[in-house]
Amino acid sequence: MVIVIMKVQATMREISAVIARIEDAGYKVHLSEGDERTIIGLIGEGQPLDIDQIERMAGVERCVPVLQPFKLASKDFKPDGTKFPIGNHIVGGDEIILMAGPCSVESRSQILETAHACKEAGAHILRGGAYKPRSSPYSFQGLGEEGLKYLAEAREQTGMPVVTEVMEPGLVPLVCEYADILQIGARNMQNYALLHAVGESQHPVLLKRGMSSLMEEWLMSAEYVLSHGNKRVMMCERGIRTFERYTRNTFDINAIPVIKHESHLPIIADPSHATGKWEYVSAAARASIAAGADGLIIEVHHRPEEALSDGAQSLKPERFAKLVTEMKAIAQAVDRNIN
Amino acid sequence: MVIVIMKVQATMREISAVIARIEDAGYKVHLSEGDERTIIGLIGEGQPLDIDQIERMAGVERCVPVLQPFKLASKDFKPDGTKFPIGNHIVGGDEIILMAGPCSVESRSQILETAHACKEAGAHILRGGAYKPRSSPYSFQGLGEEGLKYLAEAREQTGMPVVTEVMEPGLVPLVCEYADILQIGARNMQNYALLHAVGESQHPVLLKRGMSSLMEEWLMSAEYVLSHGNKRVMMCERGIRTFERYTRNTFDINAIPVIKHESHLPIIADPSHATGKWEYVSAAARASIAAGADGLIIEVHHRPEEALSDGAQSLKPERFAKLVTEMKAIAQAVDRNIN
Amino acid sequence: MVIVIMKVQATMREISAVIARIEDAGYKVHLSEGDERTIIGLIGEGQPLDIDQIERMAGVERCVPVLQPFKLASKDFKPDGTKFPIGNHIVGGDEIILMAGPCSVESRSQILETAHACKEAGAHILRGGAYKPRSSPYSFQGLGEEGLKYLAEAREQTGMPVVTEVMEPGLVPLVCEYADILQIGARNMQNYALLHAVGESQHPVLLKRGMSSLMEEWLMSAEYVLSHGNKRVMMCERGIRTFERYTRNTFDINAIPVIKHESHLPIIADPSHATGKWEYVSAAARASIAAGADGLIIEVHHRPEEALSDGAQSLKPERFAKLVTEMKAIAQAVDRNIN
Amino acid sequence: MVIVIMKVQATMREISAVIARIEDAGYKVHLSEGDERTIIGLIGEGQPLDIDQIERMAGVERCVPVLQPFKLASKDFKPDGTKFPIGNHIVGGDEIILMAGPCSVESRSQILETAHACKEAGAHILRGGAYKPRSSPYSFQGLGEEGLKYLAEAREQTGMPVVTEVMEPGLVPLVCEYADILQIGARNMQNYALLHAVGESQHPVLLKRGMSSLMEEWLMSAEYVLSHGNKRVMMCERGIRTFERYTRNTFDINAIPVIKHESHLPIIADPSHATGKWEYVSAAARASIAAGADGLIIEVHHRPEEALSDGAQSLKPERFAKLVTEMKAIAQAVDRNIN
Repeated sequence: MVIVIMKVQATMREISAVIARIEDAGYKVHLSEGDERTIIGLIGEGQPLDIDQIERMAGVERCVPVLQPFKLASKDFKPDGTKFPIGNHIVGGDEIILMAGPCSVESRSQILETAHACKEAGAHILRGGAYKPRSSPYSFQGLGEEGLKYLAEAREQTGMPVVTEVMEPGLVPLVCEYADILQIGARNMQNYALLHAVGESQHPVLLKRGMSSLMEEWLMSAEYVLSHGNKRVMMCERGIRTFERYTRNTFDINAIPVIKHESHLPIIADPSHATGKWEYVSAAARASIAAGADGLIIEVHHRPEEALSDGAQSLKPERFAKLVTEMKAIAQAVDRNIN
Repeated sequence: MVIVIMKVQATMREISAVIARIEDAGYKVHLSEGDERTIIGLIGEGQPLDIDQIERMAGVERCVPVLQPFKLASKDFKPDGTKFPIGNHIVGGDEIILMAGPCSVESRSQILETAHACKEAGAHILRGGAYKPRSSPYSFQGLGEEGLKYLAEAREQTGMPVVTEVMEPGLVPLVCEYADILQIGARNMQNYALLHAVGESQHPVLLKRGMSSLMEEWLMSAEYVLSHGNKRVMMCERGIRTFERYTRNTFDINAIPVIKHESHLPIIADPSHATGKWEYVSAAARASIAAGADGLIIEVHHRPEEALSDGAQSLKPERFAKLVTEMKAIAQAVDRNIN
Repeated sequence: MVIVIMKVQATMREISAVIARIEDAGYKVHLSEGDERTIIGLIGEGQPLDIDQIERMAGVERCVPVLQPFKLASKDFKPDGTKFPIGNHIVGGDEIILMAGPCSVESRSQILETAHACKEAGAHILRGGAYKPRSSPYSFQGLGEEGLKYLAEAREQTGMPVVTEVMEPGLVPLVCEYADILQIGARNMQNYALLHAVGESQHPVLLKRGMSSLMEEWLMSAEYVLSHGNKRVMMCERGIRTFERYTRNTFDINAIPVIKHESHLPIIADPSHATGKWEYVSAAARASIAAGADGLIIEVHHRPEEALSDGAQSLKPERFAKLVTEMKAIAQAVDRNIN
Repeated sequence: MVIVIMKVQATMREISAVIARIEDAGYKVHLSEGDERTIIGLIGEGQPLDIDQIERMAGVERCVPVLQPFKLASKDFKPDGTKFPIGNHIVGGDEIILMAGPCSVESRSQILETAHACKEAGAHILRGGAYKPRSSPYSFQGLGEEGLKYLAEAREQTGMPVVTEVMEPGLVPLVCEYADILQIGARNMQNYALLHAVGESQHPVLLKRGMSSLMEEWLMSAEYVLSHGNKRVMMCERGIRTFERYTRNTFDINAIPVIKHESHLPIIADPSHATGKWEYVSAAARASIAAGADGLIIEVHHRPEEALSDGAQSLKPERFAKLVTEMKAIAQAVDRNIN
C-alpha cells in the first residue's frame, strides 16, 4: 500500500491522472480531499508499481509506502519463525548454532587441524573460504575446488556440516557438491544473478548483510532467494561501514531484534567481521546471544599470526573454547541452549 | 609520538627543515634513511605540535600519529579502572548501575510517580531532563529550574541520586545545586566551554557520545573534563548516526569493549536512544551487559503515549521491571551483579 | 500536517482516542477509512504536536509528516531569496561573496599581512578565528579578545568586514563589539543556548552545518535564530562526515541546490573544510559556484606550513589569487558576478 | 612499503621474528630503534604481504601502509592521463564526453525516440539498461537481449556508441556483441568474477563507484580490470550512501579531483544517481565540470512520469538540451570543450 500526497496547488486534472494510473495497475483508490490538499491511497492487490514513476507525475508532492516491500520474508507472511535442521541441530529454535573455522582454507593440514579444534571446543558447523573476495587482485584468492575438497574431508572426519562462500552463479553447482550451506558474502548481497542461482539450489543459504545495506534491502535480497523457491535462508549481521575507525566495522546489534521483529528468518551474528579485532570478538559474541541471535559464525585459526587473511580478527582455539563456555552462560540466561 | 614520512624526492634541505622544526618544539629526532625515502620520528616530550602544520612542510608526504592523543583518559595513564561511589553504589566495579526515568520532567506528579516506580523496579539513579535540547524551537524545551526542583523532591522521597542534563556553562552552578550527576548531551559533546565548566565542578559527569563522534574524539572530550580537575567521568554510548532507518540510531556496541580497552573510565549504555523504539530496548540492554557495560540509562515513562518527548522509546514501568529481571540474569552470567 | 496510519487491527476505540488527541490540540481531523486500515490526517493549525507521542498510542502503525518542520526558514514562507548588505556587497543577489583569511588569528602581523593579501587577491570579507574549538585541550585555543582586536584592526586597514566564530552565549556581546558577522561552528550547530543568543543579536550569522547534520536539522537550527528575531542568516555547507578517508570531510555539494530549493536563505560553501586538503580546494570552490552558491569562505595563510591550525587545507595568497580568477570565469558562466 | 610499529614492551625475540618474516617475503628491513619503541620499515619489492598477518604477530602495535595498494591504476605508474577514443570523441583529453539516455530500455520506440532527442541535444554516447539490478525481485528487471538489440538499432540510427550494464560474467560476451562500453554497476563494484571477465574483454569499461566504497577500494577494483589486460577503464562517481535523506545519495564531488590526483584514469560524473531528483541534476552536472570531470552520464527520458525505473531523477529532453548549453559555458570557463 502506498499513499500519494498531492501538492497544495494540484489540479483536478492532475488528481484524475494519478487515479487513472493507479486503477490501471489494478488497485482500488482511497481518496481523501482535505482543505489543503488531496491524499490518494492505493488499496488491494495490483501489478507491481514503481513509486518513482508516480512521484514524477504532475501535481504529486510525494509518495509514502505504508507497508514494507518484502512479502515472503516478512513476519506477517509467516508469523512462526522458520526452523530447519542442519546436521544434528535445528536452526531457528531454542538452540544456538555455532559456526567456526578459519577465514580461508589455506592447506589440508590447516583446515583439518582447525576443524578438530573447533569441534572439540563446541562448534557445530565448520566455516572456511575456498573462494575469497579480496579487494586486491594481488592478495590470496583462495584454493578454489582444492579447498572445497579439504572442507569435505574435514566434514567427514569431524561430522560437522560445512558453510562456505560462493561468489558466482556458475560455481553454485560445484560448491553444492562439497558444501552444506552456501554463504553469500557482504559484497555480493545485491549480486542478483547469484541470489537467483542459490535460490534455485536446495542448499540452505547464509546471507550476509552488505556493508552498507539497509535492513530493508537485506530482507529484499532474502526475498530474491525465497522467491526462487529456496526457503532455508539465514540472515547474517556482520557489521556495517560507518565513520568509526577503532573497529573494522560497526556491529549493528539492533539488527538482531529488528530482523526477529520484521521477519521469520533466523538471524546469525558474525562478531569477527563486526569488530575486526580479536580482542573484541568475545564481547560482541556474548552480546549477540543476549540480544537474541539464533547462531554465531566466528573465525578461529590455529596460528592467526600466519593466517593468509583476516588474522587480526581470528581467535585461537583456546580462546574460542573459553568463549563457548561464556556463551553457554549467556544462552542459559536468555532461556536458550548451546548443545 | 609522530612519524613523519618524507616524499621520495624530498631534498636534504627539506629534511633538515623538518628536523629543525621538531627539535625547536623540544622533541628528539629519530631518523631513518632508507633507499626510497627518509622517515623521521619524534621522541620524548615536547610542546604540543600540530600535525597539519608538519604535513604542510615542503617534502613531507604525510604524518602518522603513533600514540593516541588522549593521556589522562587512557588506560596507560591509569591501568586500574576508575571507581567512585554514587549514592550507595559504586560505579566501575562489579556492580552494574541502573539509571532510569523519563526523558523529560513534565510535572511534579509525573516525575514522582515514575521515580517511585523505577525505584521499585530496581533502578539506582533517577534520570529526567529539566533542560531539553530539541531540534525544533517550537517543541517542549523542558521545565527548567522548576523541573530541577521536582527532581530534587523525587530524590528526597526515593533516596535515588539524580542525573540530569546541563546545556550551557552559565547553568552549571544551578544544576549542581539540585542534581548529583551532570549529563552532557550528545549534541554538546564538543561544546568545549561546557566541558570546561563541568570539569571545574565537583559533580560526576555522564558524557554522552556525539551522534557522529569517533571514539577518539569522545575520549578527547573526556580529556577536557579530566584536564580541568574533575576525575569522575562516565562515558555513555547512546548510538551513532548511520544510513540505517529502521532504528533511530545505530547502537555501536563495539564501543563498550573498546572503551574498556583504551580507557579506565566506566562505560554506560543508553539502549533507549541507541534503538529509538521501545520494542528493541530490552534486547539492547541485555546485550550491553553481556558486552561489559558498567551501567545503563533507560527511559521509563508511566504513559509513554502521552510523553512530551521520546515517547516512542520509553518503557512502561512493568516492562522495565521485567527487564531488570532479565538483566540480572545476564549480569550473573558475566560475573557482575545488580543490587 | 501529519498523517497517522493506523494498524490493520486497530479498534474503533483506538481510532477514537487518536482523533480525540488531535482535536484536543486544535487540529481538524481528516479521516479515511479503507478496507485494510484507517488513515487519519491532521489539518489546520494547532498546538505543536510531538509525533513520537502519537506514534506511541495504541493502534498506531506510524506517523508521516507531510510538511517540513521549519517555517520561517522555508521557501514557502518567503518565496523571494533573502538579500542583505554586508559592507559594500549584497549577499543573496547576483554577486558572489568571497570570505577569506586564516583559520586562526595567530598574531597581529600574521592577520594584517594575510588580510592585505586576501584583499588584494579579491576577497570581500575577512575570516579568522579568535576562539577556536579544538578536539584536544592541549591544542592552541585561539587568542581570544586579543585576536578580536587584531581582526578589528585588520578591518580598519583593509575595509573588509570581519566574520569570526563565537562559541558560547556569554561571549556574544563581546564578539559583536569587534566582528561584523557571527559564525556558528559545525560543533555548535545544535548548541541551542548559543543559537538563542545570536538570534537576539543584530549581527548577521554564518551558520555552519553540523558534521553529521541532516539538512532538515540545519534548517531547524536556522529556524532557532530566525525565531528569535534575527533574519540575517547565511547557511554554510562545510562537508559532512562519512566513511571516506582520502578527504577530511565529504563535500555535500547537493546541499547547495537543496537549500536554494527549500529555503530563501543564502548558501555559502566552505571548500577548505569540505576537502581538508589544499590540493582539492580550488576544484571544490569552482564547483560550488557552478552549483549555485552565493558565496565562499576559504582558508588562506601566508605560511601554511607554520599555521597553528588547519595548515593542510589553507591556500597561499598566490594560489588564492589564481583561484579568484578561476571563480570569476565560472561565475560569469552561470550569470553571476564577483566584484 | 609498510612501517611496523612495535609495542613499547616488545622483546628482542619478537622484533627478530617480525624481521625474519619480512625478510622471508623478500623485503629489506629498515630498522629504527628509539628510546621508546622500535620501528621496522619494509623496503624494496617482495611477495604480496598481508598487513593483518603482521599486525597479529607478538609485540606488534600496528602497521602503517605508506604507499597506496594499487599500482596500475596509480598516477605514479602512468603520470600522463589515460586517453582513448570512443566513437569520434577522445575520452580523457580536453573534450568533455556526454553520455545520455534512459535508465532502462523499455521498448523499441522509447529508446529510439530518446536516442534521437539526446543526439540532437548534444549527447555523444547513448546510455540505457537492458539488464537492471533491482532491489526487488518484483520490479522490472530489464528487457535483456531484446533491449540490447534495440540499443544497437539506436546506435545505427544515431551513430552514437552505446554504454550498458553487464551484471554477470556469463553475459559479458553477449553484451560485448551489442554494446561499445561495458558498465559495471555500483552494486557489482566488488563482484570480482565480473571484474575479471570485463578485464579480459576488449571493450572500454565504465566502473561505477560502490555506494559505500572508499576511493581506494574503487581504484583497487579498477586495478582488477587493468591487471587482466584491459587498459580502458573510466571511473564513474555516482554518489555515496550517507545519513542525509533529502537526496537519494550524497554526491562526493571531492572524488573528481582526488581521482585526477591519484590516478591516470578518466573520471565521469553521474549527477542523476548522485542526486536522485531531477531538480538537482543540472546543478550537480555543472559542478562536475567545474571540478574537472572528463565526462557525464545523465538520465534522460521522454516521459519520466511513465519511466519503468528512476523516473524521479530523469530529465526531459528539453531540460537536457538546456543543460548542455549550461555545461558548455562551464566547460569553456575551465578551458575544456564539449563538441
